[in-house]
Formats: sequence, structure tokens, C-alpha cells
Amino acid sequence: MNFHTRKWVKPEDLNPNGSLFGGTLLRWIDEEAVIYAIVQLGNPHVVTKFISEINFVSSAKQGDIIELGITATEFGRTSITMRCEVRNKITRKTILSIDKLVFVNLDAEGTPTPHGKTEITYAYMSVDKFTKDGTS
Amino acid sequence: MNFHTRKWVKPEDLNPNGSLFGGTLLRWIDEEAVIYAIVQLGNPHVVTKFISEINFVSSAKQGDIIELGITATEFGRTSITMRCEVRNKITRKTILSIDKLVFVNLDAEGTPTPHGKTEITYAYMSVDKFTKDGTS
Amino acid sequence: MNFHTRKWVKPEDLNPNGSLFGGTLLRWIDEEAVIYAIVQLGNPHVVTKFISEINFVSSAKQGDIIELGITATEFGRTSITMRCEVRNKITRKTILSIDKLVFVNLDAEGTPTPHGKTEITYAYMSVDKFTKDGTS
Amino acid sequence: MNFHTRKWVKPEDLNPNGSLFGGTLLRWIDEEAVIYAIVQLGNPHVVTKFISEINFVSSAKQGDIIELGITATEFGRTSITMRCEVRNKITRKTILSIDKLVFVNLDAEGTPTPHGKTEITYAYMSVDKFTKDGTS
Amino acid sequence: MNFHTRKWVKPEDLNPNGSLFGGTLLRWIDEEAVIYAIVQLGNPHVVTKFISEINFVSSAKQGDIIELGITATEFGRTSITMRCEVRNKITRKTILSIDKLVFVNLDAEGTPTPHGKTEITYAYMSVDKFTKDGTS
Amino acid sequence: MNFHTRKWVKPEDLNPNGSLFGGTLLRWIDEEAVIYAIVQLGNPHVVTKFISEINFVSSAKQGDIIELGITATEFGRTSITMRCEVRNKITRKTILSIDKLVFVNLDAEGTPTPHGKTEITYAYMSVDKFTKDGTS
Repeated sequence: MNFHTRKWVKPEDLNPNGSLFGGTLLRWIDEEAVIYAIVQLGNPHVVTKFISEINFVSSAKQGDIIELGITATEFGRTSITMRCEVRNKITRKTILSIDKLVFVNLDAEGTPTPHGKTEITYAYMSVDKFTKDGTS
Repeated sequence: MNFHTRKWVKPEDLNPNGSLFGGTLLRWIDEEAVIYAIVQLGNPHVVTKFISEINFVSSAKQGDIIELGITATEFGRTSITMRCEVRNKITRKTILSIDKLVFVNLDAEGTPTPHGKTEITYAYMSVDKFTKDGTS
Repeated sequence: MNFHTRKWVKPEDLNPNGSLFGGTLLRWIDEEAVIYAIVQLGNPHVVTKFISEINFVSSAKQGDIIELGITATEFGRTSITMRCEVRNKITRKTILSIDKLVFVNLDAEGTPTPHGKTEITYAYMSVDKFTKDGTS
Repeated sequence: MNFHTRKWVKPEDLNPNGSLFGGTLLRWIDEEAVIYAIVQLGNPHVVTKFISEINFVSSAKQGDIIELGITATEFGRTSITMRCEVRNKITRKTILSIDKLVFVNLDAEGTPTPHGKTEITYAYMSVDKFTKDGTS
Repeated sequence: MNFHTRKWVKPEDLNPNGSLFGGTLLRWIDEEAVIYAIVQLGNPHVVTKFISEINFVSSAKQGDIIELGITATEFGRTSITMRCEVRNKITRKTILSIDKLVFVNLDAEGTPTPHGKTEITYAYMSVDKFTKDGTS
Repeated sequence: MNFHTRKWVKPEDLNPNGSLFGGTLLRWIDEEAVIYAIVQLGNPHVVTKFISEINFVSSAKQGDIIELGITATEFGRTSITMRCEVRNKITRKTILSIDKLVFVNLDAEGTPTPHGKTEITYAYMSVDKFTKDGTS
């Protein structure tokens, strides 16, 4: 799994107990998954259909840097299933994992429509000249 | 199930396709569940531990009024399990439902600790003089 | 008066002195009043016209759970007048009260138009099976 | 009255009907009034105590530039009373006016305390070299 | 240079180290510069084209009141160049300065178009009756 | 240069003309640069010191997916200099580039302090098993 988007936990992201608010984390994950689905399916019109069990393994606190990892695990006819893991970028400790996030590919009228994809594509691969400059 | 908190879907809550952003909805649900847990357990220090499968049944659009319903379904020794339903307040159409949201009761050090509750309490019941003024 | 929407006071809601920012509270109240007006008048196109004197009775701090109560007090030909009270959900201490919030019912062109309502309606009543499950 | 702070009405500030959300406007006003009170009283610890009737005269729409004007009208022993007017910066049309916003001066314990001011002071006057560069 | 818009640094504006987040400050400056350009050029359709070197001279902390100053330094055929200074309103200490912010005047199709202005205009001047009430 | 963090341009990110608000983009860049600096220097206490000229090459609109790329270009004794590029993830068109973002490494008292780094480190490299799973 690749980890792309990073977040710096700021005061605006905290719950009153001083740790990262769970709802904020879920919002970040949903955005990252949508982006992944759009890029893989080549279609900006996708919707969240299903999210499997969510285990909150550990928490994050103010100042932590966390990173979000998404990878496609299954391509249906009109859907894409992804797995998600969120972890602390420095300690690599898992914060949360979700086995299945299912998004559906829609046409202009909002009806599920086949996307024609069967595997992860590299066309939009964002890592350039990896051997020369591959780092954070 | 009682429905308490309401939201008016504003431009700031939309995804680029013009419907309610799923991540925003999840953020609202997490806050409502935390509030319910705090009120029932009488302890402000609770954390989200587990969320079961989430089915996105229908969507919401700008201007919709939605309402969030939470009810406790099980009291563990240190945890509380709740069920959630979100629906359109006018049409009553279900937007999303979650069977289990599990929160854990913590002590001052952040360790799970028994809460001593076994059923829904009415001590904090917010509906006053219901027969005289029972409305939205 | 019934209290519906609840808020958990988070760091993002505070002023620099560490208490709930008054402007944030006013924003919450305005949204709750609009929702109430829309539900009662059955029309999504309403605007705030007038707010009477606002007394800030007590403050709220991080972690507090507050609840917003609105009730209609008068139905004009094109307007609805509501009363609002905000209180701490746990202690029941009043935070703020407003005697009159007046909203006007508009037609598609934005002109005030009669709404035809004369009393609080229960059609959209959100409390289901109250005797079996009536709690927070 | 001087008008200082300006706002550019962005999509994030709108209600679902496409005009400036009243609650957002009230939030802006409260911040501007607090700032004025802090500057006049020379004390960062002030709180909103009372807001008189609010008349929403006209609305604002996306892209409008609005400006907020505040001026002190009375200095009590522990309080300051201000008048507020919000208008469209280009057309000068009034959007909203409030006759009295009362803030109270607090000591470190949060108790009202005399501020010793009796008139508007110019010590913090922000207009430099007005005759040479006096413009928006 | 005149200073108009003021901000009260709230928890939502802080970075995890407890000082004003640089990105938030840049967002405030961009909005203030856009407003200035729109007012001067009399056209709501302008875009940021170029920002010169930014020196972060000092920082701001929670509770600080800061003020933003913008002044036009050059009028091109389709552009306007402005200088910006941000300072602490109470101490007058400079927080940040930017020598050049260049905005371009666009027509309805988004193409750069002449604005016909050659100097700062006073038509929209927001200081009324300055000698009688020039403060805060 | 590697591109990590992605953003989906939502209504909340737009200016009134319907394109991505420049101030929001600057906020995203500042956060991404801080994260990069913290990871490279292994110290959470860094501050933005200087940003060189910013060229806004093209704009982004609602629904666009953009990605942020940062790479270190120079390690000073107490500072790190980075280059930044923002582009549309699908079309690869550059939106904005900044040659130099300089951050300073601070000690607990907020004084610049040597960081002891001289080159990009891979210890925190976030791309796992790249040859097997190298995608978006």
C-alpha cells in the first residue's frame, strides 16, 4: 500500500479531550478514497456506497503527522472496492484500518454504470523519476 | 429511536458533484454519537472504538434538512453500543444507517474503566412538558 | 420547549479566552431557527428578518454539551416568530435566551408571501414511539 | 462611523438559498465588536453581555464585498456599549444595523472589573499618514 | 498605508506549536488583496497572478489582534500591483510584509482586459466624517 | 519530485468566481511544506521563514484533483529550503510553483538551532513495496 496524503494534526482537528476527533479522521479518509476512485475509474462522478467495519486502533494527538493509504482490492462491474490504512508517519503505528470502502461509478444521470476497469492502472502514477528522488 | 440534532445542508457541506459530502455526514454522526455516549455514561471522556458496516442508502442535496437518530442498544462493562439512523426530516427517507457504534468509557489516564450503567437513563431527558409542546 | 440539536464544544468553537465564542453560538442558533421555520412553514425559502434582544446569561467551555431549544410563539401572515433558549445539557443552566426571532416566508422571486399556517404542526414530529424509547 | 474589516462573500458563507447565511454574518460582527472592545479597553479579556434588536435590512450575495463598522457609544464602569452597521462596500446599502452591543471588562478571574475609560481613545489609531494615502 | 481588516487569533487559527498558522495568515492576506483590487478596479473578476518574496518577520499567538494593510503601488494596463503589511494592532510590530501582489483584471471570458485605472481612487473611501470619529 | 498530498476541490474551497481560492491553495502548500520539513529534520518545532516568488500558472476548478509536490533543495545549518509544485493530478498541468520555501529549525525556547542534516533522508520513506503496488 502507498501512503500519499498527509495531515498535520492542528487544534481545529481536536476533540475536547485533546486528541484527533474521530469524525475529522473519517472525513479525511472519505476524501482520500474518493480521489483514489476517481483517478482509477477516470470518472469524477463516483459515490460512497458502503464502508465496512472500522477499528480505531490508536489515537493521534496535536502535532502528529499522519498519512493515509488506500489501495484497490477489487474491481466490480460498476464499483471499486478499496482498503484503507491510516498511520502515524513517524512511528508507523496504525491509527485505523478499514477493509472495504466501496464506491460506485455513476453516469451523468446518477445511475450506476460500468467503468470497464479490471485492475489498478498506472497511467496517473504520481511518482516521477523515483530512483533519483524517491522520498518524502 | 429519537431524532435530535438537525442539519441544514449548506454549500460548505457539499462535494463537487453537488450532493452532501459523505465525509461531512460521518463527522456529524460521530459527534452526535459521542454526545449520546457522554450523556448516558455521565462521563466526558469517551472514545470511538468501533463502527460497524455503513450503508449509504440515499443521498442528500443542498437545502435538505436532515436529522440524526441515536439509541443505545447494549451496555458493556466499559463500553456502550449505539445504533444510528440518519434521515431526511421532511420526507423521512433514510440516508444512512449504522448498526453498531461502540464507544469506550475512559478514566483520567485514558484507560478503559467500568461505567456502571446497564440501561438507558432518563435523567438528562431533554423533552420538557411533552404533551403540551411536543413538536419540531 | 423542546430541545433538539446538540453541540459538543470543541477547540474550533472557542475564543482566545478559552470559552465558547459568542459568534459561533449565534451561528448555531440562526441555523436551528431556520430549520424550525422551514419545517413549520413547509417552505425552504425563508429569511431571518429580526432578532430581539440577546442576553448572554452564562458561558460554555470546552467539552460542554449544549442543546438548542426553539418554539414558535406567533404566526403572522407571511412571518413566523420563535423563541429560543440555549442551555447546558447536563446542568440545565441557561446560556442564552432570545424572545423573538422573526423569519419571513418568501416565494420563488424572494417576495414575502403568505404561508397559511396559524399554529405549530406536528406532521414532521420527530419523536417516534416516545413512550418506549423516549430519551437522549 | 469608521468601517474597517471587509469580507468577500464566498461559497462557504452562503445559505442553501444562495445568499449570505445570517449566522455567518453574526459571527463576523461578534468578532469585530470584540476586537473593538479589546482595543478600546486595552484588555484582552472581555465578553459579550448583551446585543440589542437586530434588523436584517437587506441581504448579500456571493461575490459581494461587505464592510463592518463599529463605534463606541457609551462607556460604563465595567462595560462598553457599541453600535454596529454592516453595509455593502460598493453600493453602500445597509445590510444590518445593531444599536447596542454591550461587552464587559473582566479581570483574570473572570469577574467584571472597572476599565477606567470614559471616551474613545486614539492611541491605537490605525490610519497612518491619512492625508497622503487615505483610501481603500 | 491604511490598515483595515482585523483578525482576532483564535484556536482554530493556530498551528500545533501554538502560534498563528502561516497558511491561515496567507489566506487572510489573499482575501484582503482581492478585495482591495476589486474595489480599485471596479470589477469583481480579478485573479492573483504573482506574489513576490514573503518575509515572516515575527509570529502571532492566540488572542493577538492583527491588522492587514494593503496599498496599490502600480497600475498596469490589465494589472494592479499592491504592497502588503501585516502587523500586531496593539504593539504595531510587523508580522509579515510583501512588496508585490499582482492581480489581473479579467473580462467575462476570463481573458485579461484593460481596467482603465491609473491611480488610487477615493470613490469607495470607507472613512466617513474622519475628523469627528476617526478611531479604533 | 514526488507528489503526495491530494485535494479534491470542493465548494468550500472556491472563490466567488467559481475557481479555487488562491488563499486556500497557499494554506495547503504551507501545511505540506511544514510536514516535509518536520519529517526531514525530525523535529516538530519548525517555522516558515521565507517564501520566494509565487507564480500562479493556471487555475483549478470545482471537482479538480490536485496534488502537491515538495522536495528539499538545500540544507542550511538551522534551515531547510524546499521547492514546491502544485499540479492537476489528471492533466499534469502545473497550477503553481515556488522555488524556495525556507523553514527554520527551533529548539524548545523557539531559538534557531542546528538540525545536523545535510541531505534528504529515506528513513521515513512512505512508499512500501513499490514494485508490487506502485500506484495512485
